[in-house]
Amino acid sequence: MSLKLYYNLMSQPSRALYILLKTAKCNFEPKVLNLTKGEHFSEEYTAINRFQKVPVIDHDGFILSESVAIIKYLARENLIPESLYPKESKLQARVDEFLEWQHIELRLHCAMYFRTKYMNPILFGTKYDAKTLEGYTHRMESALEKFETHWLNNGTEYIAGDSITVADLLAVCEIEQPRMAGYNPADHFEGISKWSKKVQEYFNPHYDEAHVILNKIVNKQAKSAAKL
Amino acid sequence: MSLKLYYNLMSQPSRALYILLKTAKCNFEPKVLNLTKGEHFSEEYTAINRFQKVPVIDHDGFILSESVAIIKYLARENLIPESLYPKESKLQARVDEFLEWQHIELRLHCAMYFRTKYMNPILFGTKYDAKTLEGYTHRMESALEKFETHWLNNGTEYIAGDSITVADLLAVCEIEQPRMAGYNPADHFEGISKWSKKVQEYFNPHYDEAHVILNKIVNKQAKSAAKL
Repeated sequence: MSLKLYYNLMSQPSRALYILLKTAKCNFEPKVLNLTKGEHFSEEYTAINRFQKVPVIDHDGFILSESVAIIKYLARENLIPESLYPKESKLQARVDEFLEWQHIELRLHCAMYFRTKYMNPILFGTKYDAKTLEGYTHRMESALEKFETHWLNNGTEYIAGDSITVADLLAVCEIEQPRMAGYNPADHFEGISKWSKKVQEYFNPHYDEAHVILNKIVNKQAKSAAKL
Repeated sequence: MSLKLYYNLMSQPSRALYILLKTAKCNFEPKVLNLTKGEHFSEEYTAINRFQKVPVIDHDGFILSESVAIIKYLARENLIPESLYPKESKLQARVDEFLEWQHIELRLHCAMYFRTKYMNPILFGTKYDAKTLEGYTHRMESALEKFETHWLNNGTEYIAGDSITVADLLAVCEIEQPRMAGYNPADHFEGISKWSKKVQEYFNPHYDEAHVILNKIVNKQAKSAAKL
């Protein structure tokens, strides 16, 4: 069996897949793409993923993009523990319900805030417009509130029931993203803070390992902000 | 077995599920929600779906939201044909890859155009801002172009291979949405036009039946536009 993971730890679903495979003790060949050098736009990588994004897997020649589709495929191929993506139909449906919900309801808003405040100024050398950022901040905070109310304070220990699943892993990696732009969801939402600590602990030491670069950026940004 | 479908045919994933269940000859109790009367915000419906959205299924008391999660659940419960959602791991992964891709890459942009140009003026009595609409139109057209290039002109007959699957059904219902706001993707993209005809034909007579209300709105809007 040969499994390659194309990824970059600045990408939230890349981190989730990296942590998942490490936790599952599933051997894979790491293929890191330097996104700031634009390696994902290269001809070679475009032939692997026409969407020029990470993460992607190559499993014995079968190439697949989209983190949620990848997780499900890995589960069917018995490469990740059943506890993290249950085979039982109703339990699996609860996990799927979150995995589908999060795209537009959580991921989009955290990503847009991060992109507007942190990424675009680096990529295009432009400063963000304060009013635009205010709109994105508001939408992200609404999304985080909805996430906390409807998935974390919903009577179960974790997102999709009383056990940790890939739903928790994907979500926790997502809410790390705005930290690089100076917003830590755990500072604003008690439910998110408690839950994320439990999830991080479960996936450690791989969780911290996957977040070394991100945490360096968070600290650097905090120092710059303190100087202002 | 008791299956209830809570839906409204103005909602694109509602139409997809309605057509899917009819095509599968799967008996279900139709539960239509009047969205303009705000029935989805009622206490009774909020107890069924805390997100106050359609579609939702109730299968012998098991309540599930999120159309993609519902499709996968129905497949596991053998309530829809295997050809439309293959059990074979790699074929299923190709369908999943699209189902995950479409949320932010296609659905979001068609929905935002529809909402801005058609829905918000009705709901809030406000006229859209021309520059804002221009931005949404541009993003929707880019999304449709990406969809045509990478999924339709990708060397296979349908989205996820040479057979029709739920990926085609979900996508074709999605691109009907902007028609209500006066934009028909099939008029602008030849590949989309050819493909959508084949998919509609496959799912008829249920396809047309599910689009009666939508087509009435499209015709009414076209007449109003002609008078201007």
